[in-house]
Amino acid sequence: MRVLITGFEPFGGEKINPSWEAVKDLPEKIDGVKILKKELPVSFKGIKEKLPQILNKTMPDIVILTGQAAGRANITIERVAINIMESKKEDNDGYKPEDEPIFKEAPAAYFSTLPIKRIVKSLRNNKIPAAISNSAGTYVCNTAMYVALHHIAINNLNIKAGFIHVPYIPEQVLEKPQPSMSLEMIRKALEITIKESIKDQ
Amino acid sequence: MRVLITGFEPFGGEKINPSWEAVKDLPEKIDGVKILKKELPVSFKGIKEKLPQILNKTMPDIVILTGQAAGRANITIERVAINIMESKKEDNDGYKPEDEPIFKEAPAAYFSTLPIKRIVKSLRNNKIPAAISNSAGTYVCNTAMYVALHHIAINNLNIKAGFIHVPYIPEQVLEKPQPSMSLEMIRKALEITIKESIKDQ
Amino acid sequence: MRVLITGFEPFGGEKINPSWEAVKDLPEKIDGVKILKKELPVSFKGIKEKLPQILNKTMPDIVILTGQAAGRANITIERVAINIMESKKEDNDGYKPEDEPIFKEAPAAYFSTLPIKRIVKSLRNNKIPAAISNSAGTYVCNTAMYVALHHIAINNLNIKAGFIHVPYIPEQVLEKPQPSMSLEMIRKALEITIKESIKDQ
Amino acid sequence: MRVLITGFEPFGGEKINPSWEAVKDLPEKIDGVKILKKELPVSFKGIKEKLPQILNKTMPDIVILTGQAAGRANITIERVAINIMESKKEDNDGYKPEDEPIFKEAPAAYFSTLPIKRIVKSLRNNKIPAAISNSAGTYVCNTAMYVALHHIAINNLNIKAGFIHVPYIPEQVLEKPQPSMSLEMIRKALEITIKESIKDQ
Repeated sequence: MRVLITGFEPFGGEKINPSWEAVKDLPEKIDGVKILKKELPVSFKGIKEKLPQILNKTMPDIVILTGQAAGRANITIERVAINIMESKKEDNDGYKPEDEPIFKEAPAAYFSTLPIKRIVKSLRNNKIPAAISNSAGTYVCNTAMYVALHHIAINNLNIKAGFIHVPYIPEQVLEKPQPSMSLEMIRKALEITIKESIKDQ
Repeated sequence: MRVLITGFEPFGGEKINPSWEAVKDLPEKIDGVKILKKELPVSFKGIKEKLPQILNKTMPDIVILTGQAAGRANITIERVAINIMESKKEDNDGYKPEDEPIFKEAPAAYFSTLPIKRIVKSLRNNKIPAAISNSAGTYVCNTAMYVALHHIAINNLNIKAGFIHVPYIPEQVLEKPQPSMSLEMIRKALEITIKESIKDQ
Repeated sequence: MRVLITGFEPFGGEKINPSWEAVKDLPEKIDGVKILKKELPVSFKGIKEKLPQILNKTMPDIVILTGQAAGRANITIERVAINIMESKKEDNDGYKPEDEPIFKEAPAAYFSTLPIKRIVKSLRNNKIPAAISNSAGTYVCNTAMYVALHHIAINNLNIKAGFIHVPYIPEQVLEKPQPSMSLEMIRKALEITIKESIKDQ
Repeated sequence: MRVLITGFEPFGGEKINPSWEAVKDLPEKIDGVKILKKELPVSFKGIKEKLPQILNKTMPDIVILTGQAAGRANITIERVAINIMESKKEDNDGYKPEDEPIFKEAPAAYFSTLPIKRIVKSLRNNKIPAAISNSAGTYVCNTAMYVALHHIAINNLNIKAGFIHVPYIPEQVLEKPQPSMSLEMIRKALEITIKESIKDQ
């Protein structure tokens, strides 16, 4: 079995992205399962091009995409990705879509195929604040989740996939009264997410 | 030189109070200065009775009161305590004052005599989110800060005093989307606060 | 042409529901188009049973569902309804689903077929705070939006449909620091929403 | 008897200030009492110079200062003004004080001498969301409240004084999800505040 877990590069003026900071130091194996790690670009077009290639190349059994959710206080397990790209802020390529479908003629949405309820329960049992989220927004995170699930669906692949949003880490909010979570706790949350996802297989 | 640092007992249905959790494990000495630790009751009357006694008994050079601030995301250094007690929720003695002065005929307010700006700067330099707060509320925390500063003022004592509010720790907000901070970071924040306060003397 | 516009009955301990308060006093005709008004039950099962019947009976060209969104400060035009029912609070029938599809084997989501972007623009032009929302939640509002769009889709009906969330009105938040909007402004917002939706036809 | 009520000029990039918009259209007399209205500059220095002059010239029995509170959802009756000026944003004179007393050697704070609890109760009875606030911040609003109360105190004047913060009005938040209140309701709130303050005399 193989798990692919991704984080994003920094964006929006931040120097780091806590999702990739947490992913990059995960162990190589968890519960005997190989963990592949990839840093994804904060680019609508980049995601549409590269994420299917990465999936084809690595052929994981499980793919867990992670990203930074400014303002959220807990680990949020996304329930659904919707077929829309919209942003007031440019992505790292300078692109700023408005009300644009990710793929024309494709389904309105896909639900996560990770065991989202069990992940939340396991995180809380491990003293990590967590909840289901019903919107991954319309920025690159949602696009990544949609692209992965759509690629899996249209190619009939046997891959479970979903998205985890993580809070800022403290060093990103030194001067702003915004919630954060320690990098250590985020990393532990991702390990637990992987363990719960593996159990399902 | 002696530093007295206090935390509160749990209240409002919580099982722990992060202020006391952080205080109780501080080292016995910081920068060569003896650290005295006390757990305070969440009681308007208890504070008015016991805090002056504790100050008289321990005769510290510096007193740092700490308490839990539900909903706040960062360490907040209180600027001012006001002469009022008011609460919609009962304290741990079942008391619920409305618009009642802490002491009649006493000043409207006292400013913290800790180096509040330097503490904020030092916390941020140590990668801990921090800010000045202009209101310690009207619950027992504000009362404690006011009682300490008033006792010092009317007795002409040479003691610096102030109040630090700390966020929830993660285990308190497992199921609610409220900000928290790791206990380890809170403890480090209190150590830095003590170090900065000592420098002043 | 006929427009059907609905509001919900009160729920969650509230005495009124601002959505129905605003809907019930709309004029009988707007821009020459007949306006039909219905109050819907806050009931997952009730919505699944009655909403298709109402649509079959009234056969509107446009259906605008409206509901109360606690905590939101502006008029929010929902973009998407998802195939899930989940709630920690009971509906008015005492039902509290967890992670349950509205319809098994049905699409994950439907997008609103109202001109959502133009409605937002027109509301703002009329000095009414407004925005697109990417989540109608997982309570009865989302269910109503999904049920309407699904009924229209599977029966190939030529009806545009969507959902508008409205804030509390001031009398609901007298003692809580939560955003509200005047009933007059909400009513005006619904009129503008109807006018913009009609233009499309 | 005479009531002086003030609002502020716009600041921070806003085109209007809801406090002055509401004040300027108040009737000339309320319950038989003459209402004097003044627009104040958003200037730390301007307030310190002009507000005492205005008080000396108009010699009101009651002075009600009002200002805009970005982000607040209800009418807030300020309890206390503190002897500090601090701001990250410049005032309309380009001044940006840091941790500076309004007056050296002056008291730390003054409590409002308006019947703040009765005002809140009366507003709520009139279906207007309202609450006591324990901090008027450290910007020009707090300075105005402090300057008025200090001037009254040191000159032993028989004037009741206090500060009312009002929310944004809807046209200020068309594109941001921030709370607002209709100008009509704000105006009504100020009338009720005046009526309650008069009763006290």
